[in-house]
Amino acid sequence: MANITKKVSWSSRTDESGAAGEGTPLLNGSEQPRLSRQQSGGGSIFQIGRLSTVDLEEEITSDEDSLRGRPKEIPHNEKLLSLKYESLDYDNIENQLFLEEERRMSHMGFRCLEISRWVVCGLIGFLTGLIACFIDIVVEQLAGIKYQVVKENIERFTEFGGLSISLILWAVLNSTFVMVGAIIVAFFEPIAAGSGIPQIKCYLNGVKIPRVVRLKTLVVKVCGVICSVVGGLAVGKEGPMIHSGAVVAAGVSQGRSTSLKRDFKIFEYFRRDTEKRDFVSAGAAAGVSAAFGAPVGGVLFSLEEGASFWNQMLTWRIFFASMISTFTLNFFLSIYHKNPGDLSNPGLINFGRFESESMAYNLYEIPLFIAMGALGGLLGALFNFLNYWLTIFRIRYIHRPCLQVMEAMLVAAVTATVSFTMIYFSNDCQPLGPEHTEEYPLQLFCADGEYNSMATAFFNTPERSVRSLFHNPAGTYNPLTLGLFTLTYFFLACWTYGLAVSAGVFIPSLLIGAAWGRLCGILLASITANGSIWADPGKYALIGAGAQLGGIVRMTLSLTVILVEATGNVTYGLPIMLVLMTAKIVGDYFEEGLYDIHIKLQSVPFLHWEAPATSHWLTAREVMSSPVTCLNRIEKVGTIVDILSNTSTNHNGFPVVVQITGSDEPAKLCGLILRSQLIVLLKHKVFVELARSRLTQRKLQLKDFRDAYPRFPPIQSIHVSQDERECMMDLTEFMNATPYTVPQDTSLPRVFKLFRALGLRHLVVVDDENRVIGLVTRKDLARYHLGKHGLEELQLAQT
Amino acid sequence: MANITKKVSWSSRTDESGAAGEGTPLLNGSEQPRLSRQQSGGGSIFQIGRLSTVDLEEEITSDEDSLRGRPKEIPHNEKLLSLKYESLDYDNIENQLFLEEERRMSHMGFRCLEISRWVVCGLIGFLTGLIACFIDIVVEQLAGIKYQVVKENIERFTEFGGLSISLILWAVLNSTFVMVGAIIVAFFEPIAAGSGIPQIKCYLNGVKIPRVVRLKTLVVKVCGVICSVVGGLAVGKEGPMIHSGAVVAAGVSQGRSTSLKRDFKIFEYFRRDTEKRDFVSAGAAAGVSAAFGAPVGGVLFSLEEGASFWNQMLTWRIFFASMISTFTLNFFLSIYHKNPGDLSNPGLINFGRFESESMAYNLYEIPLFIAMGALGGLLGALFNFLNYWLTIFRIRYIHRPCLQVMEAMLVAAVTATVSFTMIYFSNDCQPLGPEHTEEYPLQLFCADGEYNSMATAFFNTPERSVRSLFHNPAGTYNPLTLGLFTLTYFFLACWTYGLAVSAGVFIPSLLIGAAWGRLCGILLASITANGSIWADPGKYALIGAGAQLGGIVRMTLSLTVILVEATGNVTYGLPIMLVLMTAKIVGDYFEEGLYDIHIKLQSVPFLHWEAPATSHWLTAREVMSSPVTCLNRIEKVGTIVDILSNTSTNHNGFPVVVQITGSDEPAKLCGLILRSQLIVLLKHKVFVELARSRLTQRKLQLKDFRDAYPRFPPIQSIHVSQDERECMMDLTEFMNATPYTVPQDTSLPRVFKLFRALGLRHLVVVDDENRVIGLVTRKDLARYHLGKHGLEELQLAQT
Repeated sequence: MANITKKVSWSSRTDESGAAGEGTPLLNGSEQPRLSRQQSGGGSIFQIGRLSTVDLEEEITSDEDSLRGRPKEIPHNEKLLSLKYESLDYDNIENQLFLEEERRMSHMGFRCLEISRWVVCGLIGFLTGLIACFIDIVVEQLAGIKYQVVKENIERFTEFGGLSISLILWAVLNSTFVMVGAIIVAFFEPIAAGSGIPQIKCYLNGVKIPRVVRLKTLVVKVCGVICSVVGGLAVGKEGPMIHSGAVVAAGVSQGRSTSLKRDFKIFEYFRRDTEKRDFVSAGAAAGVSAAFGAPVGGVLFSLEEGASFWNQMLTWRIFFASMISTFTLNFFLSIYHKNPGDLSNPGLINFGRFESESMAYNLYEIPLFIAMGALGGLLGALFNFLNYWLTIFRIRYIHRPCLQVMEAMLVAAVTATVSFTMIYFSNDCQPLGPEHTEEYPLQLFCADGEYNSMATAFFNTPERSVRSLFHNPAGTYNPLTLGLFTLTYFFLACWTYGLAVSAGVFIPSLLIGAAWGRLCGILLASITANGSIWADPGKYALIGAGAQLGGIVRMTLSLTVILVEATGNVTYGLPIMLVLMTAKIVGDYFEEGLYDIHIKLQSVPFLHWEAPATSHWLTAREVMSSPVTCLNRIEKVGTIVDILSNTSTNHNGFPVVVQITGSDEPAKLCGLILRSQLIVLLKHKVFVELARSRLTQRKLQLKDFRDAYPRFPPIQSIHVSQDERECMMDLTEFMNATPYTVPQDTSLPRVFKLFRALGLRHLVVVDDENRVIGLVTRKDLARYHLGKHGLEELQLAQT
Repeated sequence: MANITKKVSWSSRTDESGAAGEGTPLLNGSEQPRLSRQQSGGGSIFQIGRLSTVDLEEEITSDEDSLRGRPKEIPHNEKLLSLKYESLDYDNIENQLFLEEERRMSHMGFRCLEISRWVVCGLIGFLTGLIACFIDIVVEQLAGIKYQVVKENIERFTEFGGLSISLILWAVLNSTFVMVGAIIVAFFEPIAAGSGIPQIKCYLNGVKIPRVVRLKTLVVKVCGVICSVVGGLAVGKEGPMIHSGAVVAAGVSQGRSTSLKRDFKIFEYFRRDTEKRDFVSAGAAAGVSAAFGAPVGGVLFSLEEGASFWNQMLTWRIFFASMISTFTLNFFLSIYHKNPGDLSNPGLINFGRFESESMAYNLYEIPLFIAMGALGGLLGALFNFLNYWLTIFRIRYIHRPCLQVMEAMLVAAVTATVSFTMIYFSNDCQPLGPEHTEEYPLQLFCADGEYNSMATAFFNTPERSVRSLFHNPAGTYNPLTLGLFTLTYFFLACWTYGLAVSAGVFIPSLLIGAAWGRLCGILLASITANGSIWADPGKYALIGAGAQLGGIVRMTLSLTVILVEATGNVTYGLPIMLVLMTAKIVGDYFEEGLYDIHIKLQSVPFLHWEAPATSHWLTAREVMSSPVTCLNRIEKVGTIVDILSNTSTNHNGFPVVVQITGSDEPAKLCGLILRSQLIVLLKHKVFVELARSRLTQRKLQLKDFRDAYPRFPPIQSIHVSQDERECMMDLTEFMNATPYTVPQDTSLPRVFKLFRALGLRHLVVVDDENRVIGLVTRKDLARYHLGKHGLEELQLAQT
């Protein structure tokens, strides 16, 4: 992610001089660069041509920005919308070829397809579970070795002094692991940085993020997350599982690997955006399911993020993939833990068993929970705010891969040092009872038979720390330990998120929240005389964890269900919901959610659920891009090549029009064709030579399009001779003959609803004679958003 | 429900002679009666005019039907599609009035609206919870009195003989309760019969079922369900909660009661189908939540049944309503049980606590579970098949209210008799241990300190019986008891569903399944030597209950989550999912789900998720209704009145066209107006007198439309004088100026997707010059469905 944001920043700072220097930057996507724009209500007039991206200086010095008190030198990427992202086409391209194939297919054929969808979902779940299992085992082994080495070292030096050597050993070990993780991410696959959740959100929303679902990304992600977790960073391995699941899904469902150049000739029917996105939803759900042991939460995550669709069978399949995923993980972990058949490890993070009796809540605790929710919202907003500034800083100054690696190593060393210092100066000794859950108890300066409590929190994988905060009996931690731990871990986690390593923010958030939640519980118990009965610190740790996580990521229903499933006890449904709701309301008042901030900083044209409420005064006429480049139904090859090669108007969809012969009436819309389709047609030389008969047009099949999907070659790689340029191309068979259209007076919310509900990529605006007057694309809709001062219009940039 | 099906049958048998005799049967709805129909592929040509419903004799003797072996005299209602049902308009009518209002509204205004939506959802949840609480307490009190009386009576007569008096007492008590329940349903509000789930499914699908969300229906439903449960029928009180929640939602959200003639002048913004349906979703979810203590399951139920929409905020609100509902129920029940603050009664049915340790399942049990799922599917299909025939029988012979009451009383008496006989002849005595959960243990002929085990199953509310089947220790029931119980209860439940009483099928299904599931567990334990360890009968009872319920209702994700939430333990997620999946697959092979059968028998134009897979060869041209009655933008009042009064073409939506003055070009589409809007316009005399200036047209406001919603008067009640008939009416302001359109070549799946995704009511089909050539409505799409022999076309009838 760091790389994306970097690129955005880089080009928004250099675009005026350097766009041509970036190779073919304008070919990387962008449905509809703005050619001219009418004044739309409160918006400003601006022209974007070949290099006409936004003048940054002007932007920075505008009134509104200085009003908001931001330093002038920082580029406001969140005020831009990048044109470099393409959209996915969730709407089927119903051209003649497609319809013929569908009509040929028998009832039995559709049934077989349905069965293979189930098989694919089962495979996705299975493989995702396996990957989660692999990550878990490798992390546990490596971290075990690391902690064992450091523990022995610390014990050796505790008595006779010289603990600084232990510190150095620890810091070096951590930095080494993190270095490996950062190098593969920064140098080989920058998209694998971070948790991957913002990228998957975008993908499910319908934005094609380059390279996000490639095999290489998966490999780097898996290795990277192992390195960063073992390297002791304040990160979790759960977020990356969602990304991993999505990549597995995108790979398996296509029946081939473009990276490995292997085509298994299966699942060819699924080689289009519609089907692929359905499978990616299943993969993301399987990832959530494997990460948290939350199959229903996984389904809800996919639906919450992705769905303009909700189809009973699809949802059921997604649920199947989720179930298989958690089951696979569970099964293999049970074998690994030498207890085969015991299905009690449903996810990577296990909250442990919450018993209803011991931890029941009472009515009068609800206001306390809500207050904790508000606190979580505040802390979450603070976290997001700090991380926002840090990301801006990174975009400006830490954009070279080697710098990124060095920053990651620095964070690793600092984390180790801070942890060590905290442990060293802590004198919170606890008896090493028979029920202790610490695997690596550090005695340090404690008496024999006791261990250092602060070390429990730091000297452990974060997952274990969360669990001990939830379940260790009251009195295990003293308040000072928890307070210090919250404080340090908060800043460490904030600094860590956004580094060029693969790592998630779920577990650190839970850990911070659990720490201050437990602190709340202890304080509550201490201020009431007989408090020990009701204020079980574990319960408050759980509520705090929910509040903090909700305050940072701002997910709603899916997060509630994920947490409920992770606790394994539905009793906590109501308090968790109330807490998440409060955290979201309070947090949203100050700052957006962490994922949304990062999506915005990448200038992704992300479509929300609904058009801004106050946008009814905008109509399709004001929103659309115009003029539109149209093609004739039978078009000259030369014209097509020229249009496709024109880097200033690198459109991706072209309305096809028909001119009634011998009439001077304007041309009517008769279809829509995509750039990718034209490229395939050009590549296969589907030309009609004028001199010869119509029959010479080569018959192209759907298979040819599917083989080229999804990496269509650029127009530059296709050679068209001068003779061929004079030929004609008949688009009738290939165009979508029935594109969705709207009249020009349609209000923005109505256009938005149609676009979002059907997952469109292009929506043709026609006048009352069915003539094309404009085209609405994702960027045209994503531009309008509700800011603090009412409706705002983002600006489009070729970056 | 019985009444609806009856009506359908009645009129399809009499329509040729009696349609005119039914008062104004043709005014009750129906968007687009078929005027002429082209031959569409494999379909047959048929003409439906004024009285041209399907010739029943011809229908019955057709080849296909005799092939399927059905008796010839029974009308095949499921082959018809009724035209009497109107659709809901989930698409906003964006006319000028609406847009002006939206544009006037500030950002703050929208925020207030959003807050009031939350308030309404909270109210819905609260009231639904209260209703559930009321039902629960009343049922418990009344049933307690009844069982106490009968128990004392039986005990009195056991020693000295004369038990037949007890039997008569029992039967008379039961019949009396059931009689009351049946009388209010059959005579006052027939729509309140049954569980109400099919009706709510239809409503959420977008079909307006008359009277389904009225206050009277709610009252009858609540009283009816109390009577039928206390009357000892094989029914549950859970299904009706869903209907009750929906009615509460429809009432509260409108801020007035049309029945009580009270208008609180609040929530006026919500007086349209779009908003109302959202709230009804929340109400249904709250109902599920109260019934099963399953808030997430409730949300999923609403989404599974309703959603062409999935909007994050809406879903979150629905979840809020669900949570409030289960919380309210929980809270008031805790007060009732004299344990305030103890939140352990989340739903009406409580599966009791399943402990993970004692009831963990192992890997090798999965195939057993799947086999049980298959058995559940088979038994479910058998249940549905029998109930289908029974319903057909009822439609033909038991359609008069008094007959319905008598049948209900007969069932009540037979249930009592059978129960009594079973108890009498059972000699399964069990020791009355200290941990027994029976509230009314019957000693009968058992030794002192023992009780009759068969009586446990029958002499209890079904909810308690389910719980004891799940949790009673192994050995409580002997296999013969369970086998006999399963058999009798299966047929009793099957007979009971569809009676003219308010009652659900969830609990009987669970009970049947739990009984044979427990039987399976016992048998498995007995055939293996050391079986007692793994084959805990309670676990198998749970699996059996899931299998049976899944086999009958065929719900998927929502049912899984409901069951998991009801058990309070997520460990059972995977087995329950597998079991439900197997049950659905096996069951679907033989027969549809129970709710779908009843929906079909009512000839409701229900839209499934997708168009039939093999329907790509159909296009909008073949599907649409044509010719269409169009109106001019400025139309003569007389013409409008005539069109609306024309009972042979009782359309509900009219495309508005504009003719360019002085041109002979055909008219272009410029808008769409609804019958209800025209009626309001006529009522308010919004006319332009030709002689005077344009300005005399009375200014109408959105409020006038909202006041009339949803019970618009029929056209007959509006008097238009001969002078007024000569006036003109300007529709410009009131029509939806930007209706969605499709070209005539659009394939059926594409039309379907648009229609379903946006929740449309009318979709205009235009040619390439934007001239209206047809109109697609819900019935046009619902007609095509996938039968056993490929794509089938249902016939439309004015019934």
